[in-house]
Amino acid sequence: MDHEAVRIIVTGGTFDKQYDEIRGELTFRDSHLPEILKRARVTIPVEIELNQLIDSLQMQDANRNSVLEACRQAPETRIVITHGTDTMTTTASLLGKASLEKTIVLTGAMVPYQIQDSDALFNFGTAFAAAQLLGPGVYIAMNGRIFDWDKVRKNREKGLFVEKAAD
Amino acid sequence: MDHEAVRIIVTGGTFDKQYDEIRGELTFRDSHLPEILKRARVTIPVEIELNQLIDSLQMQDANRNSVLEACRQAPETRIVITHGTDTMTTTASLLGKASLEKTIVLTGAMVPYQIQDSDALFNFGTAFAAAQLLGPGVYIAMNGRIFDWDKVRKNREKGLFVEKAAD
Amino acid sequence: MDHEAVRIIVTGGTFDKQYDEIRGELTFRDSHLPEILKRARVTIPVEIELNQLIDSLQMQDANRNSVLEACRQAPETRIVITHGTDTMTTTASLLGKASLEKTIVLTGAMVPYQIQDSDALFNFGTAFAAAQLLGPGVYIAMNGRIFDWDKVRKNREKGLFVEKAAD
Amino acid sequence: MDHEAVRIIVTGGTFDKQYDEIRGELTFRDSHLPEILKRARVTIPVEIELNQLIDSLQMQDANRNSVLEACRQAPETRIVITHGTDTMTTTASLLGKASLEKTIVLTGAMVPYQIQDSDALFNFGTAFAAAQLLGPGVYIAMNGRIFDWDKVRKNREKGLFVEKAAD
Repeated sequence: MDHEAVRIIVTGGTFDKQYDEIRGELTFRDSHLPEILKRARVTIPVEIELNQLIDSLQMQDANRNSVLEACRQAPETRIVITHGTDTMTTTASLLGKASLEKTIVLTGAMVPYQIQDSDALFNFGTAFAAAQLLGPGVYIAMNGRIFDWDKVRKNREKGLFVEKAAD
Repeated sequence: MDHEAVRIIVTGGTFDKQYDEIRGELTFRDSHLPEILKRARVTIPVEIELNQLIDSLQMQDANRNSVLEACRQAPETRIVITHGTDTMTTTASLLGKASLEKTIVLTGAMVPYQIQDSDALFNFGTAFAAAQLLGPGVYIAMNGRIFDWDKVRKNREKGLFVEKAAD
Repeated sequence: MDHEAVRIIVTGGTFDKQYDEIRGELTFRDSHLPEILKRARVTIPVEIELNQLIDSLQMQDANRNSVLEACRQAPETRIVITHGTDTMTTTASLLGKASLEKTIVLTGAMVPYQIQDSDALFNFGTAFAAAQLLGPGVYIAMNGRIFDWDKVRKNREKGLFVEKAAD
Repeated sequence: MDHEAVRIIVTGGTFDKQYDEIRGELTFRDSHLPEILKRARVTIPVEIELNQLIDSLQMQDANRNSVLEACRQAPETRIVITHGTDTMTTTASLLGKASLEKTIVLTGAMVPYQIQDSDALFNFGTAFAAAQLLGPGVYIAMNGRIFDWDKVRKNREKGLFVEKAAD
């Protein structure tokens, strides 16, 4: 069990949405990750990289390629990516096919960190552990499970990540 | 990566302390684990076992043996134990020396789940992932790290779990 | 100082908005008032009336008349109305001109009760006290101030209620 | 209805207790009032005076006299005092008998501000409104009610403030 540095690549998604009280809607301002790492009392070196703050339904190829490039450039071999749940598997697929020699775990939230009963902190915990414990590959950590990138899909009606047959 | 059932053995500790508004102090009433699993939107089978609700400074040999016995009896091979941080390593040591063919991860919290800025949900997330990803053995998941049972101690001044030389 | 019953007329607004995790947006499901009264440990008789659950920007004349009618029909003479902030003064004006022999206090929130750092509980506290302490009339309780219905406007850029010259 | 400045005199009590994660107990560090006023989006001038941070069961005559002196010295005529609930009526009685020409409202909390389901924010809201709306006198704002200082006692078994016959 190593305790090498972990890079967190922030892309936005429900996880980081914040309430804008003037406009009366959920939007992005900055990431909760610095606050979360302090709260989690994490003692290993962590690098937070604000790649983008976007709803994953808005993500274009350029957005996903930017995430891939960030993974490629990262000096760390252990990476957690916070991402919107709606197209998390699409980005995971792009990263998976790139076959980097790194352990990359995507996670997100069904309820924003800032809202009562949010799953963000738990999900991040599972992803943070998985990024340290698994070998090279691309994974999704949601609902207390760790999925291989090509064996998972989001059930949108239920708001849950479930297994699917491998491609 | 399997998704077999996980057993959660609750022993109390800071993690589950609640405020008693009549007596004006922190005490135990019941466990927050059922609420936490719902909030975490966990989809794999989980069995919660209320073993005891106790401050780990109060734990006697009988208390620790009860935890060991619960691990032994558990039909699941993947176990998370919530435990007070003060003597977590003592219980981990007892379990470690028993060499059960199970993956057992102890975790806890520096701040009760019910109190603002608690690390309970994050820690539980790391332990829940570790219990599924690691091979047989006994581990402690605290501060975003997963430690082998015989390579960790609590630094009480700082309130952090740190590495120590193996016994 | 009397402690007669208070009626709470719920109309929705930001105060009661909830996050819908499937649709990924803020919407209405039910009111948080029952939960709030329990949390507030209120000991006087309170009647909660769910009049409507609507964004106040959507309110039509029929919606406002329904609130007026509810005030008229209420057996209690002390009434708190939870209301969206955007047209709170419009409804207050309708109620004020009706000159009922009741003490009616409108309040709301800039941030939903369910979201971190919400002002809902504080605002409700000020309105709940004002409804018991003031004589007949229509008032708005926001930003820790109690305004006469015809001497207040919302500054939308700042998200604050401020004094204006009486009509 | 005036909107003159309000002075808040902080004395501690359950309201302001904080969890000390090293010692594992509730204690005092500083007051949550600055954070609360920001959260409440209060727009009238408020002066916060940190008089003491003490459990009200520990209060001696000197402590209560210090509160009385603070009220006397205050340039504002509208004062809110945050206070432990156990001896709140004792301090209120001392202040009441002093017959200052000021409106003084004592409030507190059964559950610390920092703990889930706290009544602190609501109680403070009721006290903040009462301090602005009532004439000179000493009052206690708890459980959604405003009591005259000599007509209230705490029922310790139930943790509620109830009416008692005037002295």
